[in-house]
Amino acid sequence: MSKDSLIQQLINAFRCLPGVGPKSAQRMTFYLLQRDRQGGRHLAESLVAAMSRVGNCRRCRTLSEKEVCAICENPKRDASQLCVVESPADMAAIEHGTGYRGQFFVLGGHLSPLDGIGPDELGVALLAQRLSEGEVGEVIIATGSTVEGQATAHYISELVHEKGIRVTRIAQGVPLGGELEFVDSSTLDHAIGERQSME
Amino acid sequence: MSKDSLIQQLINAFRCLPGVGPKSAQRMTFYLLQRDRQGGRHLAESLVAAMSRVGNCRRCRTLSEKEVCAICENPKRDASQLCVVESPADMAAIEHGTGYRGQFFVLGGHLSPLDGIGPDELGVALLAQRLSEGEVGEVIIATGSTVEGQATAHYISELVHEKGIRVTRIAQGVPLGGELEFVDSSTLDHAIGERQSME
Repeated sequence: MSKDSLIQQLINAFRCLPGVGPKSAQRMTFYLLQRDRQGGRHLAESLVAAMSRVGNCRRCRTLSEKEVCAICENPKRDASQLCVVESPADMAAIEHGTGYRGQFFVLGGHLSPLDGIGPDELGVALLAQRLSEGEVGEVIIATGSTVEGQATAHYISELVHEKGIRVTRIAQGVPLGGELEFVDSSTLDHAIGERQSME
Repeated sequence: MSKDSLIQQLINAFRCLPGVGPKSAQRMTFYLLQRDRQGGRHLAESLVAAMSRVGNCRRCRTLSEKEVCAICENPKRDASQLCVVESPADMAAIEHGTGYRGQFFVLGGHLSPLDGIGPDELGVALLAQRLSEGEVGEVIIATGSTVEGQATAHYISELVHEKGIRVTRIAQGVPLGGELEFVDSSTLDHAIGERQSME
């Protein structure tokens, strides 16, 4: 196989995917060529369609092929609750893993001045405008528990507070089903400090 | 996100790849849409080109976009040695991981009567024809060490033997760099039985 064969080109192209190294890329390439060419062609079509036609929802900024996404345009969702998340993946996790049925707002990242990511990049103006519409009664901040996620949560909370709207943060503490001895010390320290009354 | 959105279609399409479950498929989809659309388009093009234009080498049956693959048409390769493997991936492993510089023959699987895979499916007639050409002086059988791989090796070895050509099997035993206590007992039993003189 020469360096520029179609097989080698496909192996190289697979490496753009997250978590795919040279071995996996070769395995995917050989698998499709030997056993599932139809699947490979279908994947190519889906890629072309999604790459060219998926944009961002004009209301919540999540990835969507329509101008307004299915959740934003669903009148059955509770418009008084707005959950602020970092990414479409975080939004999907909350949507599929919890009973939350309010609306979402996707920042598309977290504050990171060194990378040039400030309020403008996170669509904070759009969020402020949404809050001014008067429908939202509570903003639930569900950014990550990393340092940047916490800083972003703090920044957003001040913005919401100024508008006189209730602002909450998802609970942080020990994960359910875990053994205490395997929880890292900063989580455990936070959990002790923020202990809840059981009355 | 509705079931049939382009995003969901792409997530489903990624699942045709080996080792990709729902979580990885979603991660790949969001990653490409948010950070590497160019990579996604390039992957689609590479897929289309490879799926439609890669066939099998007419001499050794490996995957190749040309009628005769680069190894078969390379006059510097030793035509007196022919290594018989199950798949193009096995061929790539030997080609890149060893000093072997002879020719190859790819069976495309192993004998498996229950799945309807017999000598015809493995291209045995083409192999027999190749051996009759008189150039091959040694056939090295490098099928897997599974039950089916061993049965296939046995079948091929008889065919080669009938032609009066030398036939060898790659060495089987404990892997290099491994601790004996972690080697499975059948491998260890074989290694003891087939011990080599150190004189």
